[in-house]
Amino acid sequence: MPAAVNGTLPHPLDPLTSAEIEQAIAAVQKAHGELFYNVVSLHEPRKAEMTAWLADPASAPRPARIADVVVIAKGGKVYEGFVDLVEDKITHWDLLDGVQPIITMEELVAVEHICRKDPKVIEQCEISGIPKEEMHKVYCDPWTIGYDERHGNVVRLQQALMYYRPDVDTCQYQYPLDFCPIYDADKQEIVDIDIPKIRRPISKTKPVDYHPAAIEKNGGYRNDIKPINITQPEGVSFKIEGRELEWQNWKFHIGFNYREGIVLNNITYNDKGNVRPIFYRLSLAEMVVPYGNPEHPHQRKHAFDLGEYGAGYMTNALTLGCDCKGSIHYLDAEFPTRAGGVRTIKNAICIHEEDSGILFKHSDFRDDSVIVTRARKLIVQQIFTAANYEYAIQWIFHQDGTIQPEIKLTGILNTYAMNEGEDTKGWGTQVFPGVNAHNHQHLFCLRVDPNIDGPRNTVFQVDTVASDAPVGSPENFYGNAFGARRTKLDTTGNSKTDYNGATSRTWEMANTSKLHPYSGKPASYKLVSREVPGLLPKEGSLVWKRAGFARHAVHVTKYRDDQLWPAGRHVPQTSGEPSRGIPEWIGDGTESIEDEDVVLWHTFGVTHIPAPEDFPVMPVEPITLLLRPRNFFRNNPVLDVPPSYASTPSQVAAGKGALDAADKESTLAFRECCSNGTNGQANGTNGHANGTNGSS
Amino acid sequence: MPAAVNGTLPHPLDPLTSAEIEQAIAAVQKAHGELFYNVVSLHEPRKAEMTAWLADPASAPRPARIADVVVIAKGGKVYEGFVDLVEDKITHWDLLDGVQPIITMEELVAVEHICRKDPKVIEQCEISGIPKEEMHKVYCDPWTIGYDERHGNVVRLQQALMYYRPDVDTCQYQYPLDFCPIYDADKQEIVDIDIPKIRRPISKTKPVDYHPAAIEKNGGYRNDIKPINITQPEGVSFKIEGRELEWQNWKFHIGFNYREGIVLNNITYNDKGNVRPIFYRLSLAEMVVPYGNPEHPHQRKHAFDLGEYGAGYMTNALTLGCDCKGSIHYLDAEFPTRAGGVRTIKNAICIHEEDSGILFKHSDFRDDSVIVTRARKLIVQQIFTAANYEYAIQWIFHQDGTIQPEIKLTGILNTYAMNEGEDTKGWGTQVFPGVNAHNHQHLFCLRVDPNIDGPRNTVFQVDTVASDAPVGSPENFYGNAFGARRTKLDTTGNSKTDYNGATSRTWEMANTSKLHPYSGKPASYKLVSREVPGLLPKEGSLVWKRAGFARHAVHVTKYRDDQLWPAGRHVPQTSGEPSRGIPEWIGDGTESIEDEDVVLWHTFGVTHIPAPEDFPVMPVEPITLLLRPRNFFRNNPVLDVPPSYASTPSQVAAGKGALDAADKESTLAFRECCSNGTNGQANGTNGHANGTNGSS
Repeated sequence: MPAAVNGTLPHPLDPLTSAEIEQAIAAVQKAHGELFYNVVSLHEPRKAEMTAWLADPASAPRPARIADVVVIAKGGKVYEGFVDLVEDKITHWDLLDGVQPIITMEELVAVEHICRKDPKVIEQCEISGIPKEEMHKVYCDPWTIGYDERHGNVVRLQQALMYYRPDVDTCQYQYPLDFCPIYDADKQEIVDIDIPKIRRPISKTKPVDYHPAAIEKNGGYRNDIKPINITQPEGVSFKIEGRELEWQNWKFHIGFNYREGIVLNNITYNDKGNVRPIFYRLSLAEMVVPYGNPEHPHQRKHAFDLGEYGAGYMTNALTLGCDCKGSIHYLDAEFPTRAGGVRTIKNAICIHEEDSGILFKHSDFRDDSVIVTRARKLIVQQIFTAANYEYAIQWIFHQDGTIQPEIKLTGILNTYAMNEGEDTKGWGTQVFPGVNAHNHQHLFCLRVDPNIDGPRNTVFQVDTVASDAPVGSPENFYGNAFGARRTKLDTTGNSKTDYNGATSRTWEMANTSKLHPYSGKPASYKLVSREVPGLLPKEGSLVWKRAGFARHAVHVTKYRDDQLWPAGRHVPQTSGEPSRGIPEWIGDGTESIEDEDVVLWHTFGVTHIPAPEDFPVMPVEPITLLLRPRNFFRNNPVLDVPPSYASTPSQVAAGKGALDAADKESTLAFRECCSNGTNGQANGTNGHANGTNGSS
Repeated sequence: MPAAVNGTLPHPLDPLTSAEIEQAIAAVQKAHGELFYNVVSLHEPRKAEMTAWLADPASAPRPARIADVVVIAKGGKVYEGFVDLVEDKITHWDLLDGVQPIITMEELVAVEHICRKDPKVIEQCEISGIPKEEMHKVYCDPWTIGYDERHGNVVRLQQALMYYRPDVDTCQYQYPLDFCPIYDADKQEIVDIDIPKIRRPISKTKPVDYHPAAIEKNGGYRNDIKPINITQPEGVSFKIEGRELEWQNWKFHIGFNYREGIVLNNITYNDKGNVRPIFYRLSLAEMVVPYGNPEHPHQRKHAFDLGEYGAGYMTNALTLGCDCKGSIHYLDAEFPTRAGGVRTIKNAICIHEEDSGILFKHSDFRDDSVIVTRARKLIVQQIFTAANYEYAIQWIFHQDGTIQPEIKLTGILNTYAMNEGEDTKGWGTQVFPGVNAHNHQHLFCLRVDPNIDGPRNTVFQVDTVASDAPVGSPENFYGNAFGARRTKLDTTGNSKTDYNGATSRTWEMANTSKLHPYSGKPASYKLVSREVPGLLPKEGSLVWKRAGFARHAVHVTKYRDDQLWPAGRHVPQTSGEPSRGIPEWIGDGTESIEDEDVVLWHTFGVTHIPAPEDFPVMPVEPITLLLRPRNFFRNNPVLDVPPSYASTPSQVAAGKGALDAADKESTLAFRECCSNGTNGQANGTNGHANGTNGSS
C-alpha cells in the first residue's frame, strides 16, 4: 500500500513523500548496494489510467505509486528503474549507455573544493595573479560541460567557470578568471583545462558589492520608502485540500518535481455548475540559455537549466514577507540526497492572492450610470537559483479564465574576464571595468497539454490580416476590411510554426466538436505570447542541434506518456546528433494531430544584450504570456464578481439605490490638502461622477 | 499678471485654472460676442523659452500664460486664437476654412434628443420594430462622421450609431439598430440617414444585463472573495508641490489637457545627486480605432478618440477605493463649457504607489548568502470613456529608472445588428444572438520627446541577429555568435520603421556625446514594445490616409513647437488628402534627425477579434510597453533600496548579523495547518534557507 500521510492516501499526482523516497531507496539499496542517487521522483500515472480514476475515483483502480529512480554507480555507470511502492518491488532496472543524468546540487558543490587543490588550477591562478596561499579565495560555478566533441558523453564532465573573491563577502562575478578546468565527476578530479590564447589577469578594481555593509559605506540606504501593508483579516479566498486548490471557479492539483518544479494538473473551471476541463497538465518543461560569444570554449555555455540541473532541485526556500507579501500558503518539497537520504526544501512553493486593479468598468456618458469591479489574482510561485541567475516562476490565475505564466529574471549576469581596451567584438558588453557580460538568450519551453472540454483538441494558428481585395474593389471599397486567418495545424510537421509580430500571431487550442452557440466558433484557449525571439544560434549549430525545441515558437505533438521533456529525458552531454525530444517526436511530420489528444510546446523568452544597469545584480525583468478563453464561455464569466460601485440610469435619476461597496481602508494621500477640500469622493450628482457634471 | 492660486503663480505648464479659463472667455466674449467654446486650454510655452526658464527660474523671463481658444460661431464658422492672460488681450484670431475642431461631450449629448424627434428616424425605428411611442427607448452614440466623401468637411456632421433599450436600465449595446442618421451640428437636425440594403429588425432577445439587480436575479454575486486591505499607515512615499511630483529619485510635472489627458513634463532622475533630464515631454498623443467591416457606412467607424473627442474631455471622475486602492492623491481637471462656463472633473487623475513584487534577488548556492529586495512602483492614472469603450491610462514609474506606459481596455464592444443565420463574412463575431461585434484595432500613438542628458539625441533601431559568419567558419565555428545590430535613423525618411518580432526589435534614444565609461555605448533609453500590430486597413485606404501616424511603429521628427498631435490639430472630417500631422512633418524625408532635438512617435496597440467573453462588458485587456535606461546609469541604480533580507557568506557562517526586515504584516494563510507545523519561516541554517539544507 502507498504510504498514507495523516491517514489519507496521497493523490496519484502528489510528489513522492519522504517515506516513499526512503522506501524506494531502501528497495534499490537492498537489490544493488551502495549507489549515488540522482533522481527518486514520482513516475506519473499513465494518462489513460489517471483519467479513468479521475472520472470515477470510487471504483476505478487507483493508479499505483511508482518511483522513477536514476542512480550512478562507482565507475560512472548509470542505471534507471522503477520501484512499485504498492508492491514494494523493483519492476524495471536498466544500465544506460552513453547517457548522463541530471547534475545534482551536491555534485556541483564538490567541484570548487577540488579545483582549489588541483596543481594545474593553482598554476593557472598564479598566472592570473592569485598567489597559491589565496586559493581559498578562488570559486567556481560548475556547469555540466554541455557537449564538447573532444570529450563525448561516456565520462561525466563538468566545466568550472572560475572566479575570485578578494573578500569572502564580495561578489565573485566581478572577478572572473579566464581559464576553464574540466572536472571528471566519477574520478573527482580535474582532467583538462581550457586556456585561452589571450590571457586576462585578474581585475584589480574595487568591489561594487551590494551587501548592506557596502551600501552603508557608500552613502547608505534611501529612507523615503514608507511601508505598504497588505493584509487579509478574514483570511484567503482559496481552499486547499492536500495539493488540490480551489479558487474562484478554478480547481487544479499542484505537483512538483526535481525537473520542472511546479506542475499543474487537472485544471478545471466551474462554469455555472458545469466543471469544464481546460488543461490536463501545464508546466515549464525545459529552457536553454545560449550565449553568443563564438570563442572557444564559450560555445559550451548554453545551459539547459531544467534538464541539466532541475528547477526543482535548484528551488529556493521562500520566506514570508520577503518573497511574497500578504497571506501566504506554502508547500514544501522533498528530494533524495546523493547518498540516499532525504532533503526537504521548506516553502518551496508559495501561494497567495493579490488585488489586480480593475476587472471591468463602464460609465454611460449620457446618464452617469457606472459600474466598477475590482479584480483578484491567484499566484502559485517558485523561485530557483541557477548559479548566477534567479528565475521567479509565477503561475497567475485570473478570475476571467485567463492563466498567465510569468517569469521574472533577476540575479547576476554570467561574466567573463576582459583586458583593458579589449574589443568585445559585439558579443558582449563591458558592464564594469574588466567584466565582459556575454550576449545571451533565455528561451523557455512551456508544455501545454490541453483538455479543452475533453482531450481531443486541434491547434490553429491565427493571423490578423487585411482582406486580399484591393482598395476600391466592391468587396473592400474603402480598404478597411480585415479579419482573422485561421490555419489548422493538421500534422506534426505543419505544426512547426514561428511567431509573426506583423500579424499579431496567436495559436488556439480548440475543441472543434464544441461550437459556441453564438459565435459558431470552437471552444478555445488562445496562446497570446509576444516575447518570442527566434533561436539566434544558427541552423546546424551545436545549440540548434541540442535544443531542438527552440527552433520554432510552437510545436504540436500527439500525446504520449513520458514525452514530458522537450530536450529529452537525460540532457547533460547530449550531442544533438540525433536531436533528442521534440524533433524525435515530430518524426517525419506526417502524424495527424487533428482532433487528437495533443500537446503544444511553446518556446518564448528574451534576448539579453547586457548593460551596466544589470550589474552587479539585475533589477527584475519580467516575461509574460497569456492563455485566454475565446469562444469558451457563453459570455463574460465574471459578471458575478461583486462590484465596488454600481449605479443604473434609474438609480442615478432617482438619486438613490446605487450599490456602494468601495474599499473603506483606502485613504487620501494628503488628508489636509486634498484637492479643493473634498474628501476624495467625486461629487457628481450620484456621488460617483463620471465627469460631465458641475458646470458653473 | 497670471492668476495666482493660493498666492503662488501657476507653473508655466500647469493647465489653465478656472479663473484663467474665465478670463480668456471674457476677453473673447468682449471682442466677438456669443460663441460656442470648443477649446480653452493652455497654449504651452515655446520650448526655448521654457528651457531657459527651467535653467534659471529666478532671472530668466517667466513664460507667459496663454490660452489657446477654439470656438464655433453661429452658422458653423470656426475661429481659433490666443489670449495672452498676462496682458489680458487677444493676440491672435483666425477664421478657419474647411476645418472642424474637436467634438465636445455637450455636442454629443444633444444628438440623441434630436434623433428621437426626427420623423425620418422615427420611420426607420418603426421599420426596425420600435413603435413611435417607444422613441424614448431609442439611444444613440454620436460619433463624428469621420470622413464621408459625400459630405466633405464644410458642414459639421456627426453619425448617430443607433441603439434601443427595452428598459431604461438595460444595456443598449445588446440592441443595435441597423441604420445611421447623419446630424448637422450647426442646424441641429438630421440631414441624412444611411439605410442598409439588408434590413435587420431589432433583436428580441432577453437582456443579459450586468447591473446588480440582473445579477441577483441570475444566481447572485459570488461570496467567496475575502477582502485584501492595502494601507500606508505612515503615508505615501511621494511629495507633490503644485503639480510637480518627487518620488524615488524621479521628478516630473503632471499636466493635463482636453486632448491628451495626462502630459508629463521635465522628467528627471536624481542620479546620486546629479539631476539628469530624461524626457522633456511624454504623452499619449493620438489613437485610432479602425473597424474591419468594409460594408458602407462602417468604414466611417475609425475613431480618433483623442483628436476627435479628447482624452481629457472624456475623462472619468475617479473614486477612492474603486478605481484605486491604498493611499491616493487626486488632481482635478477644469474645462470650458460650450456656453462659456467652467466645468470641473473632480479626481481626474489619481496618483498612488503599489508594492511591485521582487526588485532583485540573489542567493549563492554554495554558502546560502542571500539578498531579497522588494520593489515599489508609482502610478499616475486617468480613465476615460469613449462612448462604449473605457481606457485606463497608467504611467507607471519604477525605481530602476524604467517608465512603463500601460493601457487597460475595458468597457463595451461597439456592436451592430445581425439577422439570425446571417454570415459575418469574418469581419465580425456574433457575440450574442443578433449582436455582431466588428473586428477592430486600437492603435495608440505615444509621443516621446527625449531629453537624454540634454535635448540633442539620436534614435537607433536595434535588432538582435545571428552573426553572418556560417557555422564551421573560424569566426563562428560552433554557430552560436549573435549580437545587436544598431541602425542609426539619420533622417526623417529613414526613421519610418516597423516592428520586427523575429529580431526582438527595439529603438534606443541616445545621447551620442555621453558614452558610458564602462560599456562605451551612448547613454540611452530603450523603447521595448511588443504589442505592435501593423495598420490593417490597406495602403491608400481611408484610414491609412487619415491616420498617417499609424503606418509605421516608429517615426522620428525634429522637434518643433506645436507639432504635438500626430493626426493634426483639427481631426474631425479630415479627408487624409493630404495626410495631416506626421506625414507632413516627415516631409520629403531628407531632414537630418541625427544629434538633434527630436521627437519619437510610437504606434502600438492591439487587434481585437471579438469573442463572446467580451460581452456584455469586457474584462480588462492590458497593453504595456517599457522605456528602459540602458548604458545610462553607472550601474544598477537601486542597490540602495533597503532589502527585506540580506545575509553575507560570513554572516551565514557566523550564524548572525543578517539584516532581517521582512514585512511583519504578512501572515500564513492557514495558521493552524501550515506545512509541517513551521511558522512559515524557512528553517535553513541562517533562518533564510535557500534550499540545500536539512538532509536526513
